[in-house]
Amino acid sequence: MTAHVYVTLKRTVLDAQGQTVQSALRGLGHASIADVRQGKFFEIQMNGVSREQAQTEIDLVAREVLSNPVIEDYRVLILE
Amino acid sequence: MTAHVYVTLKRTVLDAQGQTVQSALRGLGHASIADVRQGKFFEIQMNGVSREQAQTEIDLVAREVLSNPVIEDYRVLILE
Repeated sequence: MTAHVYVTLKRTVLDAQGQTVQSALRGLGHASIADVRQGKFFEIQMNGVSREQAQTEIDLVAREVLSNPVIEDYRVLILE
Repeated sequence: MTAHVYVTLKRTVLDAQGQTVQSALRGLGHASIADVRQGKFFEIQMNGVSREQAQTEIDLVAREVLSNPVIEDYRVLILE
């Protein structure tokens, strides 16, 4: 069972890293790029669990370990 | 036009960050988690370009700026 967890800063939080990337891209001539936000993602392999167990466990892990719910949002995707 | 770019270390490259996360999760009792790999992702807003132009430009940016092709793979997803 493979799960993907995507963690991004909330829309209301300043993303300095993303702004730096955007400004670098504009400097390189990519003028059509209006906004960049950067996040992290985790690809997680699980053994011996059902899809439901994986969903529950990964959701818990994403909320309590992989993200900081004060400033970040997360999204969980369970694959095959 | 919104594009997502996902950058991960190639399979053959040691992912120390992912291994640290996995070992922390195992220590917290998540024994079913067999492997964790960490990557980064970029959410990019573009103005005034067609889907084809966005695809070409983001592909270029992902290959030449956002990733290091020696050790990293990237994936581009163009959303409406």
